[in-house]
Amino acid sequence: MNTFGTLFRLTSFGESHGPGIGGVVDGMPAGIEIDEDLLRHEMERRRPGQSALTTSRREADQVELLSGIFEGRTTGCPIGFFVHNSNQHSNDYDNLRRIFRPSHADFTYQQKYGLRDHRGGGRSSARETITRCVGGALAKMALRPLGITVSAYTSQVGPISLDADYRKYDLSLIESNSVRCPDPDKAREMEALIRQVKLDGDTIGGVITGVISGCPVGLGEPVFGRLQASLAAAMMSINAVKGFEYGQGFAGAAQRGSEQNDAFIPAPDGTIATLTNRSGGIQGGISNGQDIYFRVAFKPVATLLREQTTVDLDGHPATFTAHGRHDPCVLPRAVPVVEAMAAITLLDHYLMARAAQPWPPQKS
Amino acid sequence: MNTFGTLFRLTSFGESHGPGIGGVVDGMPAGIEIDEDLLRHEMERRRPGQSALTTSRREADQVELLSGIFEGRTTGCPIGFFVHNSNQHSNDYDNLRRIFRPSHADFTYQQKYGLRDHRGGGRSSARETITRCVGGALAKMALRPLGITVSAYTSQVGPISLDADYRKYDLSLIESNSVRCPDPDKAREMEALIRQVKLDGDTIGGVITGVISGCPVGLGEPVFGRLQASLAAAMMSINAVKGFEYGQGFAGAAQRGSEQNDAFIPAPDGTIATLTNRSGGIQGGISNGQDIYFRVAFKPVATLLREQTTVDLDGHPATFTAHGRHDPCVLPRAVPVVEAMAAITLLDHYLMARAAQPWPPQKS
Amino acid sequence: MNTFGTLFRLTSFGESHGPGIGGVVDGMPAGIEIDEDLLRHEMERRRPGQSALTTSRREADQVELLSGIFEGRTTGCPIGFFVHNSNQHSNDYDNLRRIFRPSHADFTYQQKYGLRDHRGGGRSSARETITRCVGGALAKMALRPLGITVSAYTSQVGPISLDADYRKYDLSLIESNSVRCPDPDKAREMEALIRQVKLDGDTIGGVITGVISGCPVGLGEPVFGRLQASLAAAMMSINAVKGFEYGQGFAGAAQRGSEQNDAFIPAPDGTIATLTNRSGGIQGGISNGQDIYFRVAFKPVATLLREQTTVDLDGHPATFTAHGRHDPCVLPRAVPVVEAMAAITLLDHYLMARAAQPWPPQKS
Amino acid sequence: MNTFGTLFRLTSFGESHGPGIGGVVDGMPAGIEIDEDLLRHEMERRRPGQSALTTSRREADQVELLSGIFEGRTTGCPIGFFVHNSNQHSNDYDNLRRIFRPSHADFTYQQKYGLRDHRGGGRSSARETITRCVGGALAKMALRPLGITVSAYTSQVGPISLDADYRKYDLSLIESNSVRCPDPDKAREMEALIRQVKLDGDTIGGVITGVISGCPVGLGEPVFGRLQASLAAAMMSINAVKGFEYGQGFAGAAQRGSEQNDAFIPAPDGTIATLTNRSGGIQGGISNGQDIYFRVAFKPVATLLREQTTVDLDGHPATFTAHGRHDPCVLPRAVPVVEAMAAITLLDHYLMARAAQPWPPQKS
Repeated sequence: MNTFGTLFRLTSFGESHGPGIGGVVDGMPAGIEIDEDLLRHEMERRRPGQSALTTSRREADQVELLSGIFEGRTTGCPIGFFVHNSNQHSNDYDNLRRIFRPSHADFTYQQKYGLRDHRGGGRSSARETITRCVGGALAKMALRPLGITVSAYTSQVGPISLDADYRKYDLSLIESNSVRCPDPDKAREMEALIRQVKLDGDTIGGVITGVISGCPVGLGEPVFGRLQASLAAAMMSINAVKGFEYGQGFAGAAQRGSEQNDAFIPAPDGTIATLTNRSGGIQGGISNGQDIYFRVAFKPVATLLREQTTVDLDGHPATFTAHGRHDPCVLPRAVPVVEAMAAITLLDHYLMARAAQPWPPQKS
Repeated sequence: MNTFGTLFRLTSFGESHGPGIGGVVDGMPAGIEIDEDLLRHEMERRRPGQSALTTSRREADQVELLSGIFEGRTTGCPIGFFVHNSNQHSNDYDNLRRIFRPSHADFTYQQKYGLRDHRGGGRSSARETITRCVGGALAKMALRPLGITVSAYTSQVGPISLDADYRKYDLSLIESNSVRCPDPDKAREMEALIRQVKLDGDTIGGVITGVISGCPVGLGEPVFGRLQASLAAAMMSINAVKGFEYGQGFAGAAQRGSEQNDAFIPAPDGTIATLTNRSGGIQGGISNGQDIYFRVAFKPVATLLREQTTVDLDGHPATFTAHGRHDPCVLPRAVPVVEAMAAITLLDHYLMARAAQPWPPQKS
Repeated sequence: MNTFGTLFRLTSFGESHGPGIGGVVDGMPAGIEIDEDLLRHEMERRRPGQSALTTSRREADQVELLSGIFEGRTTGCPIGFFVHNSNQHSNDYDNLRRIFRPSHADFTYQQKYGLRDHRGGGRSSARETITRCVGGALAKMALRPLGITVSAYTSQVGPISLDADYRKYDLSLIESNSVRCPDPDKAREMEALIRQVKLDGDTIGGVITGVISGCPVGLGEPVFGRLQASLAAAMMSINAVKGFEYGQGFAGAAQRGSEQNDAFIPAPDGTIATLTNRSGGIQGGISNGQDIYFRVAFKPVATLLREQTTVDLDGHPATFTAHGRHDPCVLPRAVPVVEAMAAITLLDHYLMARAAQPWPPQKS
Repeated sequence: MNTFGTLFRLTSFGESHGPGIGGVVDGMPAGIEIDEDLLRHEMERRRPGQSALTTSRREADQVELLSGIFEGRTTGCPIGFFVHNSNQHSNDYDNLRRIFRPSHADFTYQQKYGLRDHRGGGRSSARETITRCVGGALAKMALRPLGITVSAYTSQVGPISLDADYRKYDLSLIESNSVRCPDPDKAREMEALIRQVKLDGDTIGGVITGVISGCPVGLGEPVFGRLQASLAAAMMSINAVKGFEYGQGFAGAAQRGSEQNDAFIPAPDGTIATLTNRSGGIQGGISNGQDIYFRVAFKPVATLLREQTTVDLDGHPATFTAHGRHDPCVLPRAVPVVEAMAAITLLDHYLMARAAQPWPPQKS
């Protein structure tokens, strides 16, 4: 199941050490101007080697858009795309052929499929997230004229964490540092921790917060197509993600209803708003017009530059020490991936809500 | 989108104050003996009025199975089912017609669809979870001969919480108390808290922990059909759920890789196991044969027996005080719903994994 | 796979001799007035016993709408429905338990599922088409305010056939006779033939022609969601259907391009039309605004009131003679089923086309 | 909707005059050896310029397989592929920018999407069928070890047609002539007719017959996933197809039940067969183990090398005369496309049937 979405659909293919990574975006509305700069920007934010905090692999990650565009605009036809793999050090992975790396997908792929491409994690490599960033960039181009914006930032690295309330931060500062954290002081602490972890041959987990603004009322298809269910599936499909919450989330489980309910109020513009937004912008599975905010937990990268015990293909005890170039902390590079999956989900739901408007349709 | 699943599919319909709640289970394998007792048991665990802690509404919730069964066994054809609504106090809801209850779905349904059934929440009522329990009971009948078991329990009510490690508890005690908590002491504390909250006209949130044992290696369809993505979508589609995590979850975001990785070891039976199970039974989106465990956060019920400020249909300020019979805490009755959605998800993935076995197929 | 459609979805369940036949319509737009008379009319046209030409079984086929409707209007929530089986002569079918009726589904169901409900064909009974007529009636209620009409008529019974050009007939005469044929003379011939076939203990096949008028330009989702592909799948899913063609169909395979092309012309109302309509209203998989017309071939009913040779459950030679009440010709009662499936397909595509309109969306 | 299939899924992208044509095959089982010769062979059969009967465009159509394969075997991961466009004469199409070619998709694409790639038909070009042949070749590699074979041949060109019974022909002769007709005499007549039509600047339609042998009992998912419904959707999604029938098809509509029923008989190998096979290998929507045969009607190619009347983008009358290189008859090159779509459909249903086997599963 390498396709995500119902009306706006991303199909993904590719392995880390094959010819490249690619995909197809189907359901992109017609008439949207392609913003090559935006696409390049998103790829740049995701690519390895962008700072001292990430893997030193350098990948150009140039996206070829292969169809669905005519004279700079989308045609409504599917958009195929491809990113060549380059700068591969396949030899770095020769020792993986017969070993199951701890907490990696080697064992489960081998068992499920009977064989696997062991080079660099093959299909289970995080390099696959390239396709999400391409799909997300296209989705953002469609969401922009609707006034819907999607932002994400690193809100926790190891024990260093920001306040849960995103409104305390100036989101324009996110890109001002290499961890993509809007609190410059915390960012420096996080950077120092990541550097230390790297020196230790270890890795570290964290949390990314996402914020969607400008979302109209009415997105979400109860009961199983609740907007939060789609967002959760989108985020939980990203490598290394272990948890998702929105609104007050797990913290709200400790609260009383009187502490968590949001009172409705008349908004200055004649619409209806809520006084507080503990609900996180979704009620009954449908967006209510307030900001949608959520948090995504990432486990520490499983590849350690130190010896670990494991077993080989035959089930015999073995040891494994990773070499090569790896991220000590995936969070900075995962920020654009979280944004991308949120944008894809939003656009898909926007199209579904468009189809589901009350009857009879207005002439347009 | 009132259908969940790919090969094992639950379609749901019904409102709280219409004729009843029903659905269709499609993709149920043929030849499975219908266990009426199991079905009744699951309905009994979900129904209101089962203890002093839950709403005093009493609903018999008798399930009629309408098709797909012949001489006590499933035929492979879709199983339609229906549960009549009864004991309705529609008058309790007359005051809801023109009011938007805070943190309920009244406002978003009205805006999305242009009209709504206001009686008892209509489609957004938690009474809809009946269909999940029916689907889950059928899924459990299919999972049982495979040795796959699904358990859930209340692990937190308000500030009272259990240790995150489910192995510290005797899961056979879950049903021994009315909050469905395997720690009898904590259960008593939780009961006392819920009683107090009820007296206050307030409500309280909590967390449910789920445990899946006996799951074979190989369930999950990367990259977007990761098992955890499906489980998350399943859980986040339940009313009042605000968060999902599996394995170490959010707590693991604070850890280092060396603290979270699971070493592979040869198992006594010749298979491959892991020394620890911080991964939560899933690696690379595919089950690895270890227990799958996860936690689901529920917000406090939005219906308070005290006055709240809100607006009416015209957007004018109003106040609202709920009457009638409501749960002060949804957790005890949500335990079977969490189990049901987990069972449905597992069976769906089992069928997909069955189709995806390596080639050529074995003769059978 | 008992669900049809993408955004407007019909899920079906039920067997001919179980409690009843039912289903769920999901994706019905909100705000549509329920026309009970239309629903009753469609059920009446499909039901057995309506004339001397059809089976003498009398089934009331009263539809209970169980959800998704509030104060006479659709709410956008799924519409569950159920029709109780009655007037069952299960004893008529006792001899079927261990026999495979020729050209029926007994053998294939038994082999696929390992067991089957043998009574009256069980799930494979044409009684299942009730669900299609309910779904079709709802779809027609949505199509009506759009000015889209769907008609079908019997255009062939055995060797007696009408001219392929539907424009030669007055479609208002369709319901004026019991075969549902708009040519009264041919209708009488067909009636006589069906009566003779019945006397012979035999059955007879035929063709139904469908005509969709008022369809706007733009329905159809290339390349695999071509409108004709969806219509074909809809029709070929009906019991006893063996062929589908639209426009010139198979006859056009003998033609030259210069005989079949449709010249575009300016229409009086300022739009663009075609001088001829050999294309059948669809070009490149997308409706072009002209009438969509198609033909559906039905094989003769497999149940004969005469002895046939076959085998039993163990594969031993056996003979079989049907008793009970059966249709000698399914065409008259299949007309509303063809209309229903066309209406369902059209509405589904209308909703998809609505979602796929060029960007940016108009404010509404 | 550019994806076909449920478990074995082909996603397609590309235009005739963009960078190329490509797609993704998802759900390909793991462990299948890639047969590069078979793939090349299928592409060779589809490509233009292969004989004097087809367009003189010469396209190498070299397929790059971009993922999902490791050391010559499929891995169970999605297989991306791409075929570069070459030998493009875009100037041939400059005159199409502002004109709607009769019976082409120009008008409907323009209306639906608000813009279109006019060059060579853009997305609606038959060049898109490349993706089907790649998907079909992969499906054939999976079907081969199961003993399932798929053949197709030209059975009619204009008024020249073969007997409807495929068993009268030696299917090993199909590739012995350039029209792909197993009757050498008729083949010569067809060739002469196509040459004449080409001289006339005209085009001609025809029929392709498909035969599937070795299909096991049990493929097909009633009621909407009937095998014939999927085959019909597959075929009707091919450019220029106007009709589909299987078994006796439209001819059988003129018959009596006593002429069309197939008696069951004990087969020599202990299984159950039918004496005749008028059903076309499918009963109740499920394969019965006999040959599946079907016929597909193609209209004549719409591009004529003679003047036709039409309108331009503004709706003003205009004339259009095609130039360039075009097929006078699409049948010979469509034969591998019909086979491909049949193979894709069969494998998809095989996987669904595998998932739906009766319970409990056998250990394997």
